[in-house]
Amino acid sequence: MPELRRGPITERWVIIAPERAKRPSDYRTEDKKENSRPPSNCPFCPGKEEMTPPEIYRIPGEDGSWRVRVVPNKFPAMQDYPELGRTAVDGIYDRMNGVGTHEVVIETPSHDKEIPDLPVEQVKLIVDTYVVRLQELMKNDWYRYVLLFKNHGKQAGASLAHPHSQIIATPVVPRRVRDRLQTAREYYERKERCLFCDVMLMELKSGERIIEATDDFVAFTPYDSRFPFELVIYPRKHAHEFTQICEEQRWELARILKRTLFRLKHLLGDPPYNIVLHNSPNPIPRPGKPGYWTTLQYDYHWRMAIIPRLTLVAGFEWGTGLYINPMPPEDAARYLREVEVPED
Amino acid sequence: MPELRRGPITERWVIIAPERAKRPSDYRTEDKKENSRPPSNCPFCPGKEEMTPPEIYRIPGEDGSWRVRVVPNKFPAMQDYPELGRTAVDGIYDRMNGVGTHEVVIETPSHDKEIPDLPVEQVKLIVDTYVVRLQELMKNDWYRYVLLFKNHGKQAGASLAHPHSQIIATPVVPRRVRDRLQTAREYYERKERCLFCDVMLMELKSGERIIEATDDFVAFTPYDSRFPFELVIYPRKHAHEFTQICEEQRWELARILKRTLFRLKHLLGDPPYNIVLHNSPNPIPRPGKPGYWTTLQYDYHWRMAIIPRLTLVAGFEWGTGLYINPMPPEDAARYLREVEVPED
Repeated sequence: MPELRRGPITERWVIIAPERAKRPSDYRTEDKKENSRPPSNCPFCPGKEEMTPPEIYRIPGEDGSWRVRVVPNKFPAMQDYPELGRTAVDGIYDRMNGVGTHEVVIETPSHDKEIPDLPVEQVKLIVDTYVVRLQELMKNDWYRYVLLFKNHGKQAGASLAHPHSQIIATPVVPRRVRDRLQTAREYYERKERCLFCDVMLMELKSGERIIEATDDFVAFTPYDSRFPFELVIYPRKHAHEFTQICEEQRWELARILKRTLFRLKHLLGDPPYNIVLHNSPNPIPRPGKPGYWTTLQYDYHWRMAIIPRLTLVAGFEWGTGLYINPMPPEDAARYLREVEVPED
Repeated sequence: MPELRRGPITERWVIIAPERAKRPSDYRTEDKKENSRPPSNCPFCPGKEEMTPPEIYRIPGEDGSWRVRVVPNKFPAMQDYPELGRTAVDGIYDRMNGVGTHEVVIETPSHDKEIPDLPVEQVKLIVDTYVVRLQELMKNDWYRYVLLFKNHGKQAGASLAHPHSQIIATPVVPRRVRDRLQTAREYYERKERCLFCDVMLMELKSGERIIEATDDFVAFTPYDSRFPFELVIYPRKHAHEFTQICEEQRWELARILKRTLFRLKHLLGDPPYNIVLHNSPNPIPRPGKPGYWTTLQYDYHWRMAIIPRLTLVAGFEWGTGLYINPMPPEDAARYLREVEVPED
């Protein structure tokens, strides 16, 4: 059973998942394995469906085939369990059971076609799948936050080459998310405006960090980027919660996601990257009032972050959270803007 | 000139250091260079002293040789400059000049002898050098925080193989350090006790995460370890500031550092790792009262963290700060404890 732990110094939850554990010798540098299984043995390829745990969801294709599949992660960081087991048994420390879920979204039947290579119709189906699964997991009273992310490339943490994203639901709101929610709330209370909308307007006005702006979305490199070519995609219209995205916005998101990842791939030669959806936490049911939920955090603003993994994170970043970025985001945006993107 | 930036969403300072910049093509995966120069061309080896910028400090050896050298980093993240240039010119964003310093401590003349291979006398000289340089840099009114860290191995961010550590002084206190200082202060105000002393006592009482305890220091794996085999070394006697370490404690620190790094090396086969010193920020001179300094943060507790770099940090860690650790710290401590360490 995975476990959630929090200590009083960092005040940060950590998932201890010994089901994924190894012996010390497995960590030895010389033992590192390659992650790219040959397609004949890939559990995410069509015809290998029995290699994954039982399917949770699919978008069917023709003649019994599928276009997107969702399956449980075979080595889950979080697991279903009948009780949370919150406890102070460790005195100064906080501990609870790692109750949650860990799903894998298989984005396409094609083993080696990533988002920039797929038709935009397929990328739209991926976005649709994200919405369906998040809506479902946000209904669970035990889950406080649902994380959607994608690791592309071994250096970005992908253990299988076949294009996929992951969804983890946890019974806690991670500290960094909590910090951002609080910052957004304080800003709103002071200014009566959304912090993220303000940042986006500043960026559109200056233009120097804009990669692309469409009717519904803006892609730009943050002023305080930690990493070279780090970028974010904001919905232009204020929206605190991703799953409320309308049909037209889904198409637009699919398009800008495909175009942005094409820029990265073209400029940097298929770099490893991570995508993270920053979204509002789940609403909490209010005890004693069935069907009545506490106010959602309307002052938050959902967005996607894309982080290419080009530089090694060195020692003091881990200790202090102070990052050195050799690539000014204005230059990164200009390089990315200048990439010629083919029309779909 | 490097630049410090802070945005209103993360409220975290980032160093933008374009002097270290590269063109996009330099980031292409296939172009990654090896870092281990042959000793004949190593700028940190004896006889190559003219390859480094002018020396800041040395512990001399016999006949004009040296035992430890401190030199400026050739590609500094921070630079000396006559003004801080704090500015709100970017509206919602904060910016100031990257005024500071970036030094390299060359730990030994031997190109391939790391701390576990050195005589403890040499490790003690390294500790002495840390104290001398930190004392010097903490006197500078402009610097608010002095970071001491070591990257060992390419995967841990070391760009040169010759054993060295680094010191960066910045005009700001990094957000994560500020968060910890505040947590320590709030705990002290509530309990009238040091948070770190309490954690250490809990650990000594339970013993399950202790690697080694000497008269002056305790090495243990934190309850909420983010990474496999992550560990910390605490001074047993409460001390908020590292440079006040006495002669006997320096010897003890050299010994436990050597022994702990030997354990890691023996168990994990010379893994890449980072060491970070967590210390109090610099005192601030009080305006109008020459020679009078604001109270130091006596409720803080200095310590060293050692983080082996064995697992890749995947997508959602970057976005949320929520980490998955497959190695329970109790198991990690047991493995490390069981390593037989030769007597010095």
